[in-house]
Amino acid sequence: MSEQWLDAIAWTEDGLVPVIAQDAADGKVLMFAWMNAEALRLTAETGHAVYWSRSRKKLWHKGEESGHQQVVKEIRLDCDNDVINLQIEQKGGIACHTGRRSCFYQRLENGQWKAVDPVLKDPSDIYGKS
Amino acid sequence: MSEQWLDAIAWTEDGLVPVIAQDAADGKVLMFAWMNAEALRLTAETGHAVYWSRSRKKLWHKGEESGHQQVVKEIRLDCDNDVINLQIEQKGGIACHTGRRSCFYQRLENGQWKAVDPVLKDPSDIYGKS
Repeated sequence: MSEQWLDAIAWTEDGLVPVIAQDAADGKVLMFAWMNAEALRLTAETGHAVYWSRSRKKLWHKGEESGHQQVVKEIRLDCDNDVINLQIEQKGGIACHTGRRSCFYQRLENGQWKAVDPVLKDPSDIYGKS
Repeated sequence: MSEQWLDAIAWTEDGLVPVIAQDAADGKVLMFAWMNAEALRLTAETGHAVYWSRSRKKLWHKGEESGHQQVVKEIRLDCDNDVINLQIEQKGGIACHTGRRSCFYQRLENGQWKAVDPVLKDPSDIYGKS
């Protein structure tokens, strides 16, 4: 199968592309992460989001530990071919490792960041006690 | 005024932070760009989005040429303190330099990127003939 669609992407020097994952149902931005070409290819092939973990330097099948997989409804690319937008269904309703729905739970209020969204599940219950 | 909220951000080595600009009304992701500390401070102070242009290496007051300013309703930060999410009102209804509402107008279909959203205004009418 042709992989021209992957070659069309303007990868960073590190071979990555930034990815915005958004709830397909209501547009909530859930998280931001990175993919390399292999991650994006696997995401398109399997229909489940696969990212590249820059800290662990390996593929990160979202939900592999937490069960909070992301079912991909649509993959979009921006005008400069260097940012991906995923429309997803978030399994478990939790995208953030803090147990919140979205990673973007801090809001600037009067010059301070305030955590304004609830923790839906204790992270120790998501990831175990290891 | 304290700028602790700016110091809280995990800036890249280049002193930047990625920014996702989203329509406050319906959640459409309109564009992705970068800010340095000055851009973010100005955005918070003025209530209009100011980015850092990596190509032109200068502050970019969104809409300065096109008139398509972004009125900022909310500024959010993610769990790692390294990505910003702006909730905005997009003046003119066009965020993309191609004359489309959103920069994310290419959708992956059968292994090809297809432009699926309409051009609302000819870019030459937005930016002049210079």
